[in-house]
Amino acid sequence: MAKKTKEKPIILITNDDGVSAPGIRSLVEAVKDLGKVVVVAPDKPQSGMGHAITIGYPLRLYAAKVMDDVESWSCSGTPVDCVKLAVDKILRRKPDICLSGINHGPNHSINVIYSGTMSAAIEASIESIPSVGFSLLDYSMEANFEGAQKYARQIVQKLLGRKSDKHLCLNVNIPAVDASLINGIKVCRQAYAKYEEDFDERKDPNGRKYFWLTGAFVNFDKGRDTDVWALANNYVSVVPVQFDLTNYVLKEKLKNTFV
Amino acid sequence: MAKKTKEKPIILITNDDGVSAPGIRSLVEAVKDLGKVVVVAPDKPQSGMGHAITIGYPLRLYAAKVMDDVESWSCSGTPVDCVKLAVDKILRRKPDICLSGINHGPNHSINVIYSGTMSAAIEASIESIPSVGFSLLDYSMEANFEGAQKYARQIVQKLLGRKSDKHLCLNVNIPAVDASLINGIKVCRQAYAKYEEDFDERKDPNGRKYFWLTGAFVNFDKGRDTDVWALANNYVSVVPVQFDLTNYVLKEKLKNTFV
Repeated sequence: MAKKTKEKPIILITNDDGVSAPGIRSLVEAVKDLGKVVVVAPDKPQSGMGHAITIGYPLRLYAAKVMDDVESWSCSGTPVDCVKLAVDKILRRKPDICLSGINHGPNHSINVIYSGTMSAAIEASIESIPSVGFSLLDYSMEANFEGAQKYARQIVQKLLGRKSDKHLCLNVNIPAVDASLINGIKVCRQAYAKYEEDFDERKDPNGRKYFWLTGAFVNFDKGRDTDVWALANNYVSVVPVQFDLTNYVLKEKLKNTFV
Repeated sequence: MAKKTKEKPIILITNDDGVSAPGIRSLVEAVKDLGKVVVVAPDKPQSGMGHAITIGYPLRLYAAKVMDDVESWSCSGTPVDCVKLAVDKILRRKPDICLSGINHGPNHSINVIYSGTMSAAIEASIESIPSVGFSLLDYSMEANFEGAQKYARQIVQKLLGRKSDKHLCLNVNIPAVDASLINGIKVCRQAYAKYEEDFDERKDPNGRKYFWLTGAFVNFDKGRDTDVWALANNYVSVVPVQFDLTNYVLKEKLKNTFV
């Protein structure tokens, strides 16, 4: 029996909405029986933290509870810190897969770059741990995660059943519609769609200015092979993500520019 | 005269070490006469902030002074926030180029992903502003920026004299040697080299555990076309960087995996 338990794949789960967010509980629920799940997630919301790590301050770990029978920890750092600490100090080995989410809100297109959810997944893939970030297109804390859970389970099951590229990292977004209305899964590229910023300028009670980040989301990319297109057509979008940021086309073009 | 001033290129300068770091002053000095320089930089060190943005809190701007005759602001947010606020509320237009740095410490290889310096540059390129991040391979606040200044000026001059790709983003690292020992500039790819984490576990005066992020830098990439190779051979490394994180090779491979 003990031996059998050891053979179960280790599934590390984190997120950026914090250990108490309904989305992470939904993800644990969805994949709980596919392996040994260990949760290490931020102790507070960390949305928009991108690939931030904690330098100059130490980190804390606290016992937490996401579900019965699931080892869970909260961490005082960022989502990327959570992955690093989990591997080095909690699991003391690389998990078989790292899952992040389910995020409350979309992480398609350019959002992948600002997203704590996706940065945790990218960090895992840097560490040679196959990873998937899941995001539901619904910011609400009361969102219905049924469709997201169904597809998260299906994708994780598929990945655990095959040999993956060790740097595999998937950005999965799920449309906020009833599971029965989802048309399936599409493997896509990241759309060039972004926020057009417009800071809201206000004055505090002392008459001093401050600024709130706001902005409208604009899609500049009409391709039918993008995540934005897939989601608008009720598909689950899957974008394989890489951490080599080299622009090889420009590298060739610029070869002799600075000599 | 007023007209002539208007025709000068606008150069936005930011960093992640904060507005008072010697590195940003060195960068301003190096390019001051190439255009109208405006500085908008964090009011405190923001190393390792990656592509974090401030959500849930408003931002502040304060008048600052980096050099005489150079409009300078400090911002309470991250390097990426600085770029967004500068464009929307200070310049009220896109600058002709955005420069970030000069960072105290390297940002080659995987560091590009954790670096506030490079995230500010990447943010600019998302906004269709050509950008360059500069980093010197010396963490010291008393570092000698002479070589870095020479090459920064040369690269900026070259870029301002030609039509650049609007999403151009360069990650420039400068070896920490005397300017006379630098062999020139090499356009490179990002090496697969990263930190092997090892958290330092300690106990606070109350007997509770906390963890310091430490680790050794390991280069897994023996390619002679990488930034790590170039720097080890006393070249200035220039890696063109992109914000489309799609792994197109994996996209093809996975096309029929989830159907």
